Amino acid sequence: MAEKTSSFFEAAQRQAEEAGKRGEVPVGAVLVDSRTNAPLAAFGNRIEELSDPTAHAELLCIREGASRLGNARLSFCDLYVTLEPCAMCASAIAFARIRRLYFGAYDPKGGGVDHGPCIFEQPTCHHRPEVYGGIDEERCKSLLTDFFAERREKKA
Amino acid sequence: MAEKTSSFFEAAQRQAEEAGKRGEVPVGAVLVDSRTNAPLAAFGNRIEELSDPTAHAELLCIREGASRLGNARLSFCDLYVTLEPCAMCASAIAFARIRRLYFGAYDPKGGGVDHGPCIFEQPTCHHRPEVYGGIDEERCKSLLTDFFAERREKKA
Repeated sequence: MAEKTSSFFEAAQRQAEEAGKRGEVPVGAVLVDSRTNAPLAAFGNRIEELSDPTAHAELLCIREGASRLGNARLSFCDLYVTLEPCAMCASAIAFARIRRLYFGAYDPKGGGVDHGPCIFEQPTCHHRPEVYGGIDEERCKSLLTDFFAERREKKA
Repeated sequence: MAEKTSSFFEAAQRQAEEAGKRGEVPVGAVLVDSRTNAPLAAFGNRIEELSDPTAHAELLCIREGASRLGNARLSFCDLYVTLEPCAMCASAIAFARIRRLYFGAYDPKGGGVDHGPCIFEQPTCHHRPEVYGGIDEERCKSLLTDFFAERREKKA
């Protein structure tokens, strides 16, 4: 993993950890302007906090990044996420014209990139980013499995 | 079409018209609390206005409604939209546990309910609303065709 990719991934993982501490499913994302390598937005899930079913880490990054750039199209931006995006987020990535998507753990149950509706493979999908999945997979996966194991323990 | 449905649909069409006047693709939506028949949110697309690629009418309604109710789940709510929702919005509808979806024009190119990824038919989709498509279809369709015809005229 290149140094830059690694540091953006670590930042996404930190966002996921912080989300977990807030009781959110621990997924984190960072949006980066590839022209300058400057991070434009970094979020973990905030669904419960905001009472917003659309407040996935990826969607929050896209909204914040587009707002900061004053442009609904983020053609020069790359998105780093700890988990394979769902169909909602994958569709938003396509609408935003994101250049590259890097994600960590694969998500056979809820993913919409390599699983389920495979959004970017749909003939009606207007934009397909370059996709790099399975990055630092074990660490990204353990963020989630640890969270759910702890939650089960608390309930037991 | 029942009287209530009709009036909510007219409200969604007005939102679409207003969106068109702002230069947005004219799609409108209204979210209704089915327990009281009170509209909770009404929006047209605001993608250009907000520089937000996710600012589709449906997503704005879901976010506003969930925020107002202080709950990310909108199990008692129905959504009225002038156009078949895309995959992003259909996924958000599933996450929000919307009870019923009423939509106007079918969208073979960009729809995600009866076309493309058919989100609610995916085995990984956790919630499928009752879906009623093709309501006041001709009027809903003409909102879009008139808008694009006018735009082409202006360009010519």
